[in-house]
Amino acid sequence: MKNFEFYNPVKIFFGEGQIDRLSQEISPFSSILLTYGGGSIKRNGVYEKVINALAGKKVIEFGGIEPNPRYETLINAVELARQNKVDFVLAVGGGSVIDGTKFIVASIPFEGEPWDIVAKGIKVEKAIPFGTVLTLPATGSEMNSGAVISRVATNEKFSFGSPAVFPKFSVLDPTFTYSLPKHQVANGVVDAFAHVLEQYLTYPSNSPIQDRFAEGILQTLIEVGPKTLENPFDYDLRANFIWSCTMALNGLISTGVPTDWATHMIGHELTALFGLDHGVTLAIVYPALLTEMVDFKKDKLLQYGSRVWNLSAKDLTAERAIDETEKFFRNLGLKTRLPEHGITFNNTKTIVERFRARGWILGENKNITPDKVEKILKRASEPYK
Amino acid sequence: MKNFEFYNPVKIFFGEGQIDRLSQEISPFSSILLTYGGGSIKRNGVYEKVINALAGKKVIEFGGIEPNPRYETLINAVELARQNKVDFVLAVGGGSVIDGTKFIVASIPFEGEPWDIVAKGIKVEKAIPFGTVLTLPATGSEMNSGAVISRVATNEKFSFGSPAVFPKFSVLDPTFTYSLPKHQVANGVVDAFAHVLEQYLTYPSNSPIQDRFAEGILQTLIEVGPKTLENPFDYDLRANFIWSCTMALNGLISTGVPTDWATHMIGHELTALFGLDHGVTLAIVYPALLTEMVDFKKDKLLQYGSRVWNLSAKDLTAERAIDETEKFFRNLGLKTRLPEHGITFNNTKTIVERFRARGWILGENKNITPDKVEKILKRASEPYK
Repeated sequence: MKNFEFYNPVKIFFGEGQIDRLSQEISPFSSILLTYGGGSIKRNGVYEKVINALAGKKVIEFGGIEPNPRYETLINAVELARQNKVDFVLAVGGGSVIDGTKFIVASIPFEGEPWDIVAKGIKVEKAIPFGTVLTLPATGSEMNSGAVISRVATNEKFSFGSPAVFPKFSVLDPTFTYSLPKHQVANGVVDAFAHVLEQYLTYPSNSPIQDRFAEGILQTLIEVGPKTLENPFDYDLRANFIWSCTMALNGLISTGVPTDWATHMIGHELTALFGLDHGVTLAIVYPALLTEMVDFKKDKLLQYGSRVWNLSAKDLTAERAIDETEKFFRNLGLKTRLPEHGITFNNTKTIVERFRARGWILGENKNITPDKVEKILKRASEPYK
Repeated sequence: MKNFEFYNPVKIFFGEGQIDRLSQEISPFSSILLTYGGGSIKRNGVYEKVINALAGKKVIEFGGIEPNPRYETLINAVELARQNKVDFVLAVGGGSVIDGTKFIVASIPFEGEPWDIVAKGIKVEKAIPFGTVLTLPATGSEMNSGAVISRVATNEKFSFGSPAVFPKFSVLDPTFTYSLPKHQVANGVVDAFAHVLEQYLTYPSNSPIQDRFAEGILQTLIEVGPKTLENPFDYDLRANFIWSCTMALNGLISTGVPTDWATHMIGHELTALFGLDHGVTLAIVYPALLTEMVDFKKDKLLQYGSRVWNLSAKDLTAERAIDETEKFFRNLGLKTRLPEHGITFNNTKTIVERFRARGWILGENKNITPDKVEKILKRASEPYK
């Protein structure tokens, strides 16, 4: 096991009716910025419940945070918050709204150009406190201190993180997610699954607790993912799906182990360039990356095939474990090859060029060079068997 | 899944050399109370490393906190801390030192008789901040907000807890535990194992993540427990043992599930009355309790037998799962029956009388009455087959 630091002070209120905890949590604050997305919360009743819980406070609304939240949008919220001397921000939404809100709360007290936080990786020392009400389980942003922000002007997508942007609390009420469209739930299952794989499918590091926690999340996603897609109103299925997503990226399973994250880095580019949903990009890149890097990941792939996919000794190969993974993504309804999204191998050359320009070498072994990325994209361009 | 709140703000510094993080963490404080136990830290070099890290601070020492820390001892530390206007306490030791320190930090600003915190369950609203340097993995106290305190005058042992007594940080360096006597490591394995069972061997609640995390910790303890006993200087074995103990009782695996804790309640009495080590009491009570309550725990016992003990379908019974558990405790060197410790069934009558007087009815189903406790103690009085 490697040395590590673990710290996660997010307070979780989990379950139906937990929105009632909101008023106590925000009692010290007076001027609240309420951030949300495209307005689905106004149709499914969540908005009303939140507004009721905020009774007596000055509430300034900022809706319209889009999927893959954009600097160009968020900077307007920063201005609005500064004008209104906002002392707390409440994010109601999924990963995009929460990620966007992390950028907003970090930017409000930031002196200088906020985009530098993301592009130049400037350390965020202070931020306005914020909480979240989760409506779309997937990214784990409700219980971590990271965020991914896009800039339309340059077709870029970058991540940043700081202990200053941990939510103070997150309300996770499964009933708030009942009205989600099927494809968003499917994307969420893949996103959470990929988060676990990034921290698990690397090389053995003698960390059995972390391995078993990771495997437990993967097994649960395999078990409840397809079912919660078909039965959106089954409370327990949805609850277990949500807790899987949160546990997948709250820092716990990465303690003491090597991590990869190359699939996410490549996937971010596919989103930035072609507008593909984040979950969809992961479903495309992961099988191709695992196949390309199979020699370096063989030990963990075999463990994964055996413990997560229950492959018997005679069926157990790394390739079979990869096949099961891609099949799982496809059974959830995601298309796992670039041509299925109208993208050719040639279209992806920009990605390789960008990685070359940035000097990025990715992966747990620091051996996923731009050349390797090219090969991975080549594999992702082949038709599914 | 039941509704739950989860909050755990303890910062963990894990690994060899992490004591170096101490000076930064305590930099805001000036008058430090250093608490420890019988002085083993002075023989194994940990004391010196801690003192070096505290250079430049006013340090007041309070050693001699005993196993099952006593009110009568701790109250002296409270007095000492008040006299010296201590603004931070550093606990260096195992669960007893850390538990005792939680009582100290809660008592320092407490107006009134501190024993009431424990005996009357008075809510602790504020406490002096403290950190820990762990030298004996077992109780999980380094990452939770609970403590168990004894009072010699009345032969009592009670627990208390409050978010105010979460450690600010804990340093977990496996090398700091190399010199532990074998029986303390064995007790620690059983203690952590029992902590998981208390939160897992109840009734099914459709919480697969929590179940799999619990099973992962149990499997790891089965795997590394006996090995770290035999190979105390194997870093990875010790590291995995420590992380198992911490994960066993940091609030994570109890989220949304029923919990039992009857074995601990009965075990505390065996310690209070007969001075048995905490881990030893759990090894005595657990097999007896599971056998007595088998009808109510059957579903989870079968899941446990299958997933944790890998019992095949033809061997899988609840009784077999219980047998494996007792065998595991015995193989670690613990005696699991009362007569092996010179205690007869008649000696234990006080326990049942106390539970009757207190009106305690225990267990996840609130059906472990004093009569049931009597039957459990009867079973624990039978010789091992």
